[in-house]
Amino acid sequence: MKQFELAVVDNSSRRHMRRDAATSALLDATAAILTEGSGVDASLNEVSKRANINAAMIKYYFGNKEGLLVAVLERDAEMAMGALDHLVEMDLPADRKLRIHIEGVINAYHRSPYLNRLIHYLMTSGQATSRDRVTDMFIEPIITAYTAIIAQGVAEGTLERVDPVLLYHSLMGACDHMFHAASSLPKTLGVDQIDDELKRRYMQFVSSVFLKGLRPD
Amino acid sequence: MKQFELAVVDNSSRRHMRRDAATSALLDATAAILTEGSGVDASLNEVSKRANINAAMIKYYFGNKEGLLVAVLERDAEMAMGALDHLVEMDLPADRKLRIHIEGVINAYHRSPYLNRLIHYLMTSGQATSRDRVTDMFIEPIITAYTAIIAQGVAEGTLERVDPVLLYHSLMGACDHMFHAASSLPKTLGVDQIDDELKRRYMQFVSSVFLKGLRPD
Repeated sequence: MKQFELAVVDNSSRRHMRRDAATSALLDATAAILTEGSGVDASLNEVSKRANINAAMIKYYFGNKEGLLVAVLERDAEMAMGALDHLVEMDLPADRKLRIHIEGVINAYHRSPYLNRLIHYLMTSGQATSRDRVTDMFIEPIITAYTAIIAQGVAEGTLERVDPVLLYHSLMGACDHMFHAASSLPKTLGVDQIDDELKRRYMQFVSSVFLKGLRPD
Repeated sequence: MKQFELAVVDNSSRRHMRRDAATSALLDATAAILTEGSGVDASLNEVSKRANINAAMIKYYFGNKEGLLVAVLERDAEMAMGALDHLVEMDLPADRKLRIHIEGVINAYHRSPYLNRLIHYLMTSGQATSRDRVTDMFIEPIITAYTAIIAQGVAEGTLERVDPVLLYHSLMGACDHMFHAASSLPKTLGVDQIDDELKRRYMQFVSSVFLKGLRPD
């Protein structure tokens, strides 16, 4: 009996590992295609070819293309939002937390330039369930975190009492634009892509503007 | 002879007026469709129906759909960039110019929420000639204006010496995000659309952050 149970567990965990490996490969392929492109056009065919996994399995694992796109976002969100929760709880001054957060957001957009594109796409063209999922994954946790950081900063005298939603829109837009608009970089900065040095300069610039800009008079 | 010349002029100016009325109607219809939607999908059929002008005339006037989209941007650019040139030349302190500019950009995005979407689309998916046109229309004039305003503000002691390209990306992103992300507003702000009061609050917030954030220490 013991042995039989072990065998069952073994088979089930092997199946899980196979499933995890397959879904990971499909998510990696989708993220790579989205990163290379400029829209949200990852065809199931292309994803299947790139991941070397039958397209029918995409439907099996994710339902449809929108399910696949939501799953890509979920994976990015898990990492980013976990880090944000942790940051809010840390024993650090509020302005330091905000700076670390800004660097984190710019790093996330640098790593996954499709992030905001995908969020906008699902919020405007996705089904109601996808819209709710995106809101739950990204928008609400960020606004909750900003509410806490602003309250702490007001108490510490380093941040003005501002509307966290206005901060959300302006800061997300500022962090994202250079990556979203990467195609204009050869014209604006004379470079083909954003290297680490440029990313650091942008982090420094955006952090400085927002931290000084939010300081009480 | 004199009479014949007059007749020619009259016919030609009548033709011009007809052409202007038709292209205006087509541009209005396209802008309306883009404003209602969330992508850059204005089908020629829909534009033709809305403007009540035969679809063949779109091809005649604009070449193809991309030509139509570029023409929509050109009309918006003409107004906005004219105002910016004028602002740079005005006898005002640099920080006041920057505040007026930020209000102008937010007004433009409020009026034409498709602006940044269309710029990104043409820069990433457009033909080389469209990309060059967008750069000439928007990106270069804005960066030239920022270079002048920053130099003036440095001289006046109200602005830090910053890279105008980094200012361009962060400020455009900040101004645009709330309009671009309008679909998330019911969730973030509990409102269905951006009314004048919310627009004013956003202007005030973004101006305050950037003006204080760019002030020398």
